[in-house]
Parts: sequence; C-alpha cells; structure tokens
Amino acid sequence: MKVGFIGLGHMGAAMASNLIKGGNQLTVYNRTPAKADALVALGAKAAASLADACQGDAVMTMLANDAAVENVVFGEGGIIDSLPRGAIHISSSTISVALAERLTAAHKAAGQRFVVATVFGRPDAAAAKQLVVVAAGEPEAIKTVTPLLDAIGRTTYVASETPSIANLIKLSGNFLFVSIMESLGEAIALIGKAGIDRKEYLDFLTSALFDVPSYKLYGGLIVAGKFEPALFAAPLGYKDIRLALAAADDLRVPMPLASLLRDRFLTLLAHGGETLDWSAVGGLASKDANELAA
Amino acid sequence: MKVGFIGLGHMGAAMASNLIKGGNQLTVYNRTPAKADALVALGAKAAASLADACQGDAVMTMLANDAAVENVVFGEGGIIDSLPRGAIHISSSTISVALAERLTAAHKAAGQRFVVATVFGRPDAAAAKQLVVVAAGEPEAIKTVTPLLDAIGRTTYVASETPSIANLIKLSGNFLFVSIMESLGEAIALIGKAGIDRKEYLDFLTSALFDVPSYKLYGGLIVAGKFEPALFAAPLGYKDIRLALAAADDLRVPMPLASLLRDRFLTLLAHGGETLDWSAVGGLASKDANELAA
Amino acid sequence: MKVGFIGLGHMGAAMASNLIKGGNQLTVYNRTPAKADALVALGAKAAASLADACQGDAVMTMLANDAAVENVVFGEGGIIDSLPRGAIHISSSTISVALAERLTAAHKAAGQRFVVATVFGRPDAAAAKQLVVVAAGEPEAIKTVTPLLDAIGRTTYVASETPSIANLIKLSGNFLFVSIMESLGEAIALIGKAGIDRKEYLDFLTSALFDVPSYKLYGGLIVAGKFEPALFAAPLGYKDIRLALAAADDLRVPMPLASLLRDRFLTLLAHGGETLDWSAVGGLASKDANELAA
Amino acid sequence: MKVGFIGLGHMGAAMASNLIKGGNQLTVYNRTPAKADALVALGAKAAASLADACQGDAVMTMLANDAAVENVVFGEGGIIDSLPRGAIHISSSTISVALAERLTAAHKAAGQRFVVATVFGRPDAAAAKQLVVVAAGEPEAIKTVTPLLDAIGRTTYVASETPSIANLIKLSGNFLFVSIMESLGEAIALIGKAGIDRKEYLDFLTSALFDVPSYKLYGGLIVAGKFEPALFAAPLGYKDIRLALAAADDLRVPMPLASLLRDRFLTLLAHGGETLDWSAVGGLASKDANELAA
Repeated sequence: MKVGFIGLGHMGAAMASNLIKGGNQLTVYNRTPAKADALVALGAKAAASLADACQGDAVMTMLANDAAVENVVFGEGGIIDSLPRGAIHISSSTISVALAERLTAAHKAAGQRFVVATVFGRPDAAAAKQLVVVAAGEPEAIKTVTPLLDAIGRTTYVASETPSIANLIKLSGNFLFVSIMESLGEAIALIGKAGIDRKEYLDFLTSALFDVPSYKLYGGLIVAGKFEPALFAAPLGYKDIRLALAAADDLRVPMPLASLLRDRFLTLLAHGGETLDWSAVGGLASKDANELAA
Repeated sequence: MKVGFIGLGHMGAAMASNLIKGGNQLTVYNRTPAKADALVALGAKAAASLADACQGDAVMTMLANDAAVENVVFGEGGIIDSLPRGAIHISSSTISVALAERLTAAHKAAGQRFVVATVFGRPDAAAAKQLVVVAAGEPEAIKTVTPLLDAIGRTTYVASETPSIANLIKLSGNFLFVSIMESLGEAIALIGKAGIDRKEYLDFLTSALFDVPSYKLYGGLIVAGKFEPALFAAPLGYKDIRLALAAADDLRVPMPLASLLRDRFLTLLAHGGETLDWSAVGGLASKDANELAA
Repeated sequence: MKVGFIGLGHMGAAMASNLIKGGNQLTVYNRTPAKADALVALGAKAAASLADACQGDAVMTMLANDAAVENVVFGEGGIIDSLPRGAIHISSSTISVALAERLTAAHKAAGQRFVVATVFGRPDAAAAKQLVVVAAGEPEAIKTVTPLLDAIGRTTYVASETPSIANLIKLSGNFLFVSIMESLGEAIALIGKAGIDRKEYLDFLTSALFDVPSYKLYGGLIVAGKFEPALFAAPLGYKDIRLALAAADDLRVPMPLASLLRDRFLTLLAHGGETLDWSAVGGLASKDANELAA
Repeated sequence: MKVGFIGLGHMGAAMASNLIKGGNQLTVYNRTPAKADALVALGAKAAASLADACQGDAVMTMLANDAAVENVVFGEGGIIDSLPRGAIHISSSTISVALAERLTAAHKAAGQRFVVATVFGRPDAAAAKQLVVVAAGEPEAIKTVTPLLDAIGRTTYVASETPSIANLIKLSGNFLFVSIMESLGEAIALIGKAGIDRKEYLDFLTSALFDVPSYKLYGGLIVAGKFEPALFAAPLGYKDIRLALAAADDLRVPMPLASLLRDRFLTLLAHGGETLDWSAVGGLASKDANELAA
C-alpha cells in the first residue's frame, strides 16, 4: 500500500518503521527533516513537503497535540488541500474529541475518508509491534486500513463507526492509568509512613492482587520515587486528563477522580515537573504526607 | 494442632473447614450455635462457650467488626480471660489498626501471643483454599501458626513483626479495590454517555490493558448495573474505607481519593444501598451523569 | 460623551439606561433590534449596524460569552474594523482571560484603546446603579472612561494596567460566590438531616455569624429549595467556573474546591438544570444525602 | 446563682469571669489549680476537687475535647457522681455529637439535667461578653440557665430540645469558617500568581462583596501568610472538621468540601503545622501553586 506518514517522534518513527517492514511503500514527513533519515535507510521516501506525503492511498499522522494536527491538516498545502478524493487520513495522535469531530466533518466535505486509530503503548512497544490499537470510522475505510493497523500493533479493537470515539477511548484509558498512579500513590504513602517497606509492599500487591503490567510499572516508579528520565512526560499526561475532562464537559459527565488528577498534575507542573514521568503524580501523596521525612 | 475458631460467617466457616481438612483439631464457636453444625459434621467440636474455644494452642477469630472483636476478646470469659499463657490469638477480622494495637498490648500483658492474619478473597476463594493471607507478629509466633495459614490460603505474605501492620495492609488493599470501582465507574459513565457499548468497552479494557480479576469482576458488575445479591456488602466496604481513613488520620496522611470514596459510600447508603454489593459505588458516576437516561 | 453600547440583555439594557441618565449620548445596538426601543424612548439612538455603534469616543460591550464577543469584535464591520484610532472599547462581559488578552493585543495593533470593566451585581442592582465595577487598563484610558463607570455603579476598583486582570478578578469573585453555595449546601444538608429547621438555622447563621447579602440570598434559595425562576442561570455559573479553571490551568494553580464546583454544575446540568438558578448547586448536597426524604 | 465552672483555659477563664461579674457565686476548678487565682481575686471560690465544683445549681464545663469531658463527667468523683439531682450541667466544650448524646442519657439516668451551650468567638470576644451562644436542651432547663448565658454572650440562639443539636450547629459553623479559608486561599493563589497585589485584592473583596468579619480576619492572615501566633490552633480546627465528618457519617451525609478540608488539615499537620493558626489551611493553595515563588 502507498502510505504517507507525518510525525516522526519516538512513537511515529517506530510505527512507520513497522509499516515499512510490513511491505508498504512509505513517504515520510517531519517538520525536522533529519528525523526521516533512519526510515529512508529502511526504504522510505522522504517527502519534500506535506503535500508530497499525501499522494498515496492513505496518510497516517502521529503528532503531539491538537495544534500540530490542525496545522498539518488545515494549513496551506496540508492534508485537506492535498489528499486525493477517496484516500484515507488515519489519525493516531492523542487529540481532543472535538478536533476529531471537526476532522471528520472536514474530510467528509473534501471527499476524503477519515479513520481514527489511537494506540496504547510506549515507544518500546511501538518498536516491538506490540501496540494496542483502537480504531473507529466507516467499516469500509476500516477494512482498507486494517493491514496497516495489523502492521503496527498486536491487537486492534474496532470501537465505532464514529471516528472520534476512538479518541475518547484513548483518553479514558489514560485516565484509568493515572487513576492507578493516584491510588497506588496514596496507598504507598499510607503504608510507607507506617514504616512498611514500600518495595516489599508493592511486590506483594503486584504478585498476589494486581498482577498486571501497569501496577508493576507505575508502582515501581512511585516506590523508587525516581521519575526521570520520563517514559511519558507529565505535560502529556496532563494534556490527556484535560482532554478527557473537556469531553466530559461536553457530555455533561462529572468525573471527580479525573478532577483530582488534573489538580495533581497542576501541582506537579507548578513545581518544575515538566520533565518528569507522568507517574510522578503518584508521588504527591507521599509529599503531602511528608512520608519520606517520617 | 488444637485450635479454637470463633466466628462462623461465610468466610469463617470456609476457613474453619479448611483447617479441619488440614488435620487440625478444631473447637468452633459462634454466637448463633446452629452455624457450627456443618463443621461438627466434618469433625469439629462445638464449643459450649467462648472459654471452651480457648483451650488449645491457638484461637482464630473471624468477626464482622471492631465491636464484635472487642466483645469476644475483652468480654467476661473471653479470650483474654481464657486463653492459656503462651497460646496464640490469630485475628483475621478486618478491624481498625487502633484496635489491633490495643489487642497487641492486652495479649502481651496477659502473657499470650498475638498474630494478625488478614485475608483477601471472597467466601468462594476461602472455600477453595485460595485466600491471600497477610500475616504480622513476632517471628516465633508466625512460625508456629504457619501450618494453619498454609491450610487456608494459597499464599502468605509476612509483612512485619508488628501485628497491626497486617490490618493496615488489608485496609490499603480494599482501598485499592474501591479505587478501581470508582475509576472504572467514571470511565464507563463517560464512554457510555458517548454511546459506546459498555460491555464491549470493558471487554476491550480487560483483555488488552487490565487483564486482572478485579477489573473484570467489578467492571462487569458496574457495566451490568446489577449489584444484588451482594458478594461483599456496601456497608462493609464503607467500614473499611473509614478504617483506612482513621489510620490515615493517626498517621497524618491525606488521601483525597479515599475521601472521595467515603463520600461515594455515604451517598450510596443514604439512598438505600445497604444491601448492595460494594461495587455499587462504581455505579454512582453514571447516576450523576444521568448516563443511562441518555 | 458619545458612547456606543452593544448587547442589550437585562444587564446591558440597565447599564445603558444609566449611561443615558448620566448625560451621555448613546448609540445602542443589539442583534435583536426591538430591545433598543425602550432605550430610544429614553433618548438613545438605535444603531443600524455594529459599525454605527462604533463612531463615538467609546463603545461598551456587555455580551453573553466569548463567542458573542469574538463575533462583535473580530467580525466583518465589527469593532476592530470600525472603532476610530484612539477610541476606547470597554468590555464588561464575563469572558475568558485568554480572550481578554487577545482583545488587548488586537486593539493595540489597531491603534485603539482597550479597558475591561467587569461588573458584580444582578440586573436589579444594575438598574439601581449599584453595580460593583472592576476596571483594568492603561491609566489614561481608565481616567477617560471613569465618568461612564461612575454612571453605572456604586464603586469602581481599578485593579491593574493589564485589562485581563479585571476578568480574572470577576471570575475569582464568582468562584467565591459558588463556594458559599456549596458550603451552605453541605451545612444545611447536615443539620437538616439531623432534624433542625433549615430556615431557623439560616436565620441564626446570617444574623449572628455571616451577616452579608450573599449568605442571605443564596442560603435562602437553598433552604427553600426553589431555584426557579433563575436570577443568574446555572449554565452561566458553570461557564464562569470553567473560565476560572481555564485561567488556573494557564497559571498552573490547582483549585480543588473549584474542581468540586465544576463537577457539581455538571451533575446539575446532566439532570435538566439548565433553567435553574446557579444556587441550585447548593441543593445537591441535600440530594446526595437524601435529606429531604429523611 | 451558685455555679461551678470547670476548665479555665483562655475561653473558660473569660467566661467564668463574666459569670462572676454577672453576680453569680462561682466555684472554679482546673486541673492546674494556679489558673484559678485570677478568678479567686475576682470573688470566685477555688474548688478543692471536681466534686467541690458540683455543689451548686449548675456546673458549666469548657474543656478541650471529648476525652477531657469524659474524664470530668464520668470519672470517679466527677459530675455524674457529684452533681445533685435536678441540678444542671451546662456543656460548652466543642465535642462530638455522639458524646453529647451519651451525656444526655447519662445525666437523665442520674436524675440530673443537661444543657448544651456552645459558643462562637475567640477569647477576646469571650472577655468582652461578645460570644454567640447556641443552646439546646429541655425548655425548663434552658430557662433556668438563661441568665448565665446572657452573662457570657451578646446573643443566644435556642436551637432545639435535644442538647446534642447545639454541638452539631457549632461544628457546622466551624466547617463554614474553614470553607471560607479554603475558598479565599484558592482565589488568592489564583490572583496572586497572576501578579495582582494580594492585599489590595482582599481589601476590594471585603469592602465591596464580603463585608463580614470572617472574610476580613482569615483573609488578612492568608494574604499575609502569617499564621503565628495561633488565635485558634490548627489541631483544634482539624478536630472540629473530623467531628463534623463523624456526625455526617452517622447521619449519612456526604460532605465533599468537608472531606477536602480534612485533607488540607492533614497536609498542614504532616508538615509541622501544629502550632499554626487554623487559617493556615488557606495558605496551602498558594503552596500547591508555588505562588509565592512566582
């Protein structure tokens, strides 16, 4: 399949690499062109412009936030301007539900097709083709891009015919991850201040009760209190909680735990947490309890 | 080993049964004597009085709350009065950290030994010898009772030489379970109100991201919105969150998520939730969002 | 002074009326022209277009929300297009801090001057010239418009040379009012469920401890549980809490009480509260407690 | 009237002094006898024992907490043992609703009468006879002690025939005060981080919108960030919020704002806040926002 790929950060580069390995002809684009070099070495073509990346059957975008996606899609010579009628834009970025709805309408008006395929997993999972993909869009379009989704992940959940639903599910999932950080953070502050060894406690929890990767990974970081280098940076986690709350606003869904998590991120960011891993929100309960001084 | 067993509710009866099967001589006591019948049929002796159940090497208690334990331990002819010097009281009830500390001191003063062995698992897990046991107490006493703990559970975590620590860990664990209910409840309210099929969503979550029994069990109940009959009743869950918060008060540990959970239970109980399963707290987010009317 | 006035809702009409009584020559504009009639009867001129209302020394806007202000300011033939260089736009609408910052920059770029003059008070206070005005902007511009501000309010607080600061103060004030509703709501739920007469309790509070209009007004509505007709509608209160939280996001200020209030409004709006007075958030604690059924 | 007075802290001593000035014969008792000296100089008799203070028509208690009241009432030679049948115990301490209910039953069983008369106001208000008194109890008993209540306060609100109701109202009032600290604290963190002068902002608020002593006093302390010396110490404020929540537990009333305040106090006390004024909870929002570093 002839596919453009826009956005070659850690996640995007790993996904693009797997698309190439999957036998697709890739044209890759990044604002900073040097990031394309490794993929060109694998057989990709470097696009000279955004438009250049929009000449295939599909174009996939993996960008940092709403603003980046808006630029690439709506900007002059962007995807709306350049993608052929009937071709498919696959959006994998974690963006707002509202923007996904705007994209749906704009592509429809331009005679293009639109699929959202959000992904769960960090760059190492992306590199290992172990992403969990949540896709949504018209069944025919989903069917067309399925080989691409199969090339980047270990499983794909087709959630809805409405593309933005895949964004909502991605946001709800990240909310669930941060909820784990908060609950573990409070539990660890409690037992830590009582003098229990934090690591032994977590080992018990994650072997006997919560034998699942998220509890092990985030719990381990919280127990160690080491949040650098960031696997997924706090400002990104904060952005996702805000987007979840924005969707909840529009749907009129009160989410008091999500509100608490938003406040946690704000506290973190107000104290220089920009470079920390998002699991650092799970360290705030210990700070409030003055636990490590105990 | 000669063991007394006090408290033959669903959990206690299953545990006592496994102690008998493990080859121990049991003398069982319950306020309502009829509950002893099935165990007597298995080979236990029915105690005529509390004191009668305190004549062995150890006596195990599995009671509903602090008040029940206080009666049995401190009441006339109770455990403090009746247990031989050097014999061991094994407390498995989910009680306050403060009461566990009082019991520690009282048994020491009476020349008796005291071990806390709290358990995770519902009655079906207890019957199947699949409980997770968290034990704490003096190493020599723990060693002595280890065959008993092995007889009731699938694994034992020895947490500390301080008995009450096992109570704190039990409370922290139940806090983590209720946190899961709240986070799933909010996520389900959000995606449900967006029109996503709740059951499919949960199936995705629990296969791809949270493949662990607690998410499956509680998520399933929340998705179905069926909280009767109760596997573990809401008033018991409420009690445990309150006990966790009471321990947090004494340790000066703010736990905002636990505070939210306490408020959720109060709302539930204010609206006739006494007979519901504790996972009904996970249904409140949907009520606040008026989701099911959407 | 020659002044345009755009936005003749309950508040705007009352303010415009006082500007006329204060001896100013008013040209009034409203999307629905009929609303200008009463003011024309008082001596105002009806503007045929937005541009028509922008021919004086100043133009004052009193509109419902960010979108309305954006249309009027940035739309074709709007204030940016039509206001003479050196003339002053006085913005009294409760809008976001971010939009106020955009307006500041846009007016500067257009050679126009910009003052924010937010107001506290309901339409009856506006009619009675009893508004509290919070103004911000360059001192010279503030000085020029002071006679206008004196004509609409009982007092003016000049807060800053940065216009958007007056918006932030307005939002912080509305946050404080809703905080009163929440705290009174919880206290009333508590004492009401204990069987105390709610009205007598409030009378005691507001005579002996909190002898201030906001406690009396909102407390009275909460005690009576009558939130219709709305003096200030719930969606407007919700909007203001959201704008306060948006400003807090940008400034990295966690406001857990504001987060709670946002969730309260969402619950209210999810249950058909669109037409209720904003103080209905103070009734939710009684609902959660099932107080009135007690 | 012949009156005993037990508990001569800052509040108690001031109240006892006014009772003497009101023409009553006082017998005063304090665990530390030296505290009686100043009152003896005013004409009081120093009691040699608790029993000695229980020989009049009434005995008034003003003690620090539940434990102190339990000792004085239920201890050997205490009020239950010593107060004549028909005489009245007036309890002014801020204690739990549950203890007030126990006292009601115990005095009834002993043939004694019981009135609760809680007070609002700090020691300076007590000295100036400016306390606000909330009384509850049987009408006949209230009538008998009215001259005493008139001697210590500026106004008395008779709330109920059930004594403990006066305790609940006192606790609800302190909850409302701490709510003011939290809301002002968040507002000040917000505007302070935006660069607005905190003191000018508060002056505006308390002149134009919240012209009431509590906003001025607590707001002033929060603006200044000076919480020492304590007018009312943080551990006492914390105790009162806990007692309010305990009453809310029993009545099944969720109070999310009270839960937030409890967590604030825990954070404060975990960081050495034992000696600070309770309004220091209003300083935590600025700490979370890192405002003063901005």
